Amino acid sequence: MIAHVYITPKEGILDPQGETVGQALRNLGIDKVAAVRVGKYIEIDLPGMARAGAEKVTREACERLLVNPNIESYTFEVVKGD
Amino acid sequence: MIAHVYITPKEGILDPQGETVGQALRNLGIDKVAAVRVGKYIEIDLPGMARAGAEKVTREACERLLVNPNIESYTFEVVKGD
Repeated sequence: MIAHVYITPKEGILDPQGETVGQALRNLGIDKVAAVRVGKYIEIDLPGMARAGAEKVTREACERLLVNPNIESYTFEVVKGD
Repeated sequence: MIAHVYITPKEGILDPQGETVGQALRNLGIDKVAAVRVGKYIEIDLPGMARAGAEKVTREACERLLVNPNIESYTFEVVKGD
């Protein structure tokens, strides 16, 4: 299985990278942009695992390493790999 | 509309951040992890736009600013916002 993990700054947490990207887009004339949030997208290859096990491992990876729960929230999905 | 953009290192491009995260997970005992790729997840808020326009703006943002086509590939989806 392959886990796709999406990590974003929590609502209300300042996201300077997103602010910068939004301003840069507007400076380029892409002016329909109201707001940008920049987060992380992580793919974890978990070969030979069933769905339930892969979800458990992914949750553990997020909680023990990948995500700072003070300022980030995450979601993930587990999909069949090659 | 809200665009969700996923940017990943291209196949065959070394991803040192992904290697490091994979090793760190295995060091924590999360040893089912075969490989990790670390990319970016970007949300772009495009209020008051129809789907076709939002897709065009998102593609332009990727090609003119967000993505380095030498080493990164991207996909995106546009969804209805609040």
